[in-house]
Amino acid sequence: MTGFRRDPIVGRWVIVSADEPMDVDQFYQLYSPVEKHHPEKCFFCIGRELDTPPEVYAVRPNGGEANGEGWVIRVVPNKFPALVIEGELESRPIGLYDISNGVGAHEVVIETPDHFKTLADLSFEEICEVIKAYRVRINDLQNDPRFQYILVFKNFGASAGASIEHDHSQIIALPLVPKNVKEELEGARGYFDYRERCIFCDMWRQERDEGVRVIYENNDFITFCPFSSRFPFEMWIMPKYHSSRFHEITDERAMELAKALKDALIRLKLLLHNPPYNFVVHSSPLRGTYEHYHWHIEIMPRISRVAGFEWGSGFYIVPTTPELCAERLRKVIW
Amino acid sequence: MTGFRRDPIVGRWVIVSADEPMDVDQFYQLYSPVEKHHPEKCFFCIGRELDTPPEVYAVRPNGGEANGEGWVIRVVPNKFPALVIEGELESRPIGLYDISNGVGAHEVVIETPDHFKTLADLSFEEICEVIKAYRVRINDLQNDPRFQYILVFKNFGASAGASIEHDHSQIIALPLVPKNVKEELEGARGYFDYRERCIFCDMWRQERDEGVRVIYENNDFITFCPFSSRFPFEMWIMPKYHSSRFHEITDERAMELAKALKDALIRLKLLLHNPPYNFVVHSSPLRGTYEHYHWHIEIMPRISRVAGFEWGSGFYIVPTTPELCAERLRKVIW
Repeated sequence: MTGFRRDPIVGRWVIVSADEPMDVDQFYQLYSPVEKHHPEKCFFCIGRELDTPPEVYAVRPNGGEANGEGWVIRVVPNKFPALVIEGELESRPIGLYDISNGVGAHEVVIETPDHFKTLADLSFEEICEVIKAYRVRINDLQNDPRFQYILVFKNFGASAGASIEHDHSQIIALPLVPKNVKEELEGARGYFDYRERCIFCDMWRQERDEGVRVIYENNDFITFCPFSSRFPFEMWIMPKYHSSRFHEITDERAMELAKALKDALIRLKLLLHNPPYNFVVHSSPLRGTYEHYHWHIEIMPRISRVAGFEWGSGFYIVPTTPELCAERLRKVIW
Repeated sequence: MTGFRRDPIVGRWVIVSADEPMDVDQFYQLYSPVEKHHPEKCFFCIGRELDTPPEVYAVRPNGGEANGEGWVIRVVPNKFPALVIEGELESRPIGLYDISNGVGAHEVVIETPDHFKTLADLSFEEICEVIKAYRVRINDLQNDPRFQYILVFKNFGASAGASIEHDHSQIIALPLVPKNVKEELEGARGYFDYRERCIFCDMWRQERDEGVRVIYENNDFITFCPFSSRFPFEMWIMPKYHSSRFHEITDERAMELAKALKDALIRLKLLLHNPPYNFVVHSSPLRGTYEHYHWHIEIMPRISRVAGFEWGSGFYIVPTTPELCAERLRKVIW
């Protein structure tokens, strides 16, 4: 019964991923806190390669066989995927509603073989390999004409939604463009039509000029707390070169991005005692051209609760300013 | 420094509610779990009336002075408001961005004097008084021409965002119409323009015809798990009469709503071991006419985590079907 359902009022799609009826206690198990530090039970660790689905990508600096040891990064299909890779996309109406089968891909990027390391602890080179792994997988998945959008994201820590402790990120290929992405594209297009410029290019230049929200800058990237942050210590990493597609990043720029990403994550870790966080790579849809769009990464620490007010209204209440958060983050020494 | 900030890309408004710089430990205190069962410390309890701002509404069946004992419901301004009631609304640009002062009202509805009762435990008559309290306050606040929208919502339980254990709900009056409300209005208008009917009227009739997602029905209201539920056990309570404004509810219908609301909350409580939840009253903006819109209440249990995927995409992954959730909820005997 895995499939997509569309809300007829606002056009939001929901993935229903339910193969078996679950009882209420199973729900709570599903959402109970992540078990801590049990590498002997962890199937993302070295030596457990046969307990995951066969890998679709791996980095083995000293060679070695697929699905054997010796890897530093492994990408495997999700063992419990929200979507299935087989079949044609078929949509149909049910009265007012729309339903569609759950065609898509759901992969897990195991960022390190070390159960006790987090992405922030990895070296620039290691993080660069993670970025390249995203790039490889997107370039492969986009060859499938059924896919319209590929979402790369990371849930770190149980309250950010991670169900497995061993550090990993996720890639989901979708047969449609998500609503929030459409909204971003439309907003950026409105600005482009009016001012004949990319709003993101103007934004990072204004951020650099004002300076108060900037945390880090290198040749190709700038990190800042966005002016209208939804969460305390929210950070955006934005390329200073104009490009709508994350996966067209060069090797050289991937290394600059690795430096920016490590800088952001280690500041978060040190300042906020290793908080849970999510990051999402915002990139353009796979088909069509989007010269008005500009890819970037949004990092959202999960130290505040999202409550009823935010859910009902799309409004957020933040108990501090992004200027103050940026000041605190800048002061971290690492 | 309390004020509104607008995201220039998607048009989302954020309230920054930050009077004083806070250090990092204060953040964690702010968001630490609610203290349990300490009525002696609770300023929403009987006898602590002078520890809240002076009440703006109260029900005292046997009479008594304002801000004294003898009340069954009290509405007070929030002691730590996200918004301030004084001043004219002033907006200005900062480069790309927009900023505006934090004019608005933020009130708390103390639903019962009993520290150990929840809304689900109250009688139909008591819940009806809560609904009437919302109505009274909206009718008063809407006289202020600065306000465009009034949001009524409830956070129950710490992981749903409640910072005070004693049962309460909240009312926020805003000088602008929130983005999510605009989206709902636009979606409903699209359907209305095309089919010349209210999408919500068609929806509840389809739900009643299909039956599989319906939990409860009375003369004026129907409760169902929505077809594209974002959360397990999400429920919508929808009036079977067409009206865009919650606060035009009659006394008789307020009693029917009380029955529907109690039914929904007690089923949740019994089935899911008193889970945290949010509910939000979706109603039309205060100014203008919205014949294509239809007010309703959305109840969102917080037993699942909202993770990176949902945040980045507006997509939700739900591990069960609303049909199965409705079946479970229907089977609860109370």
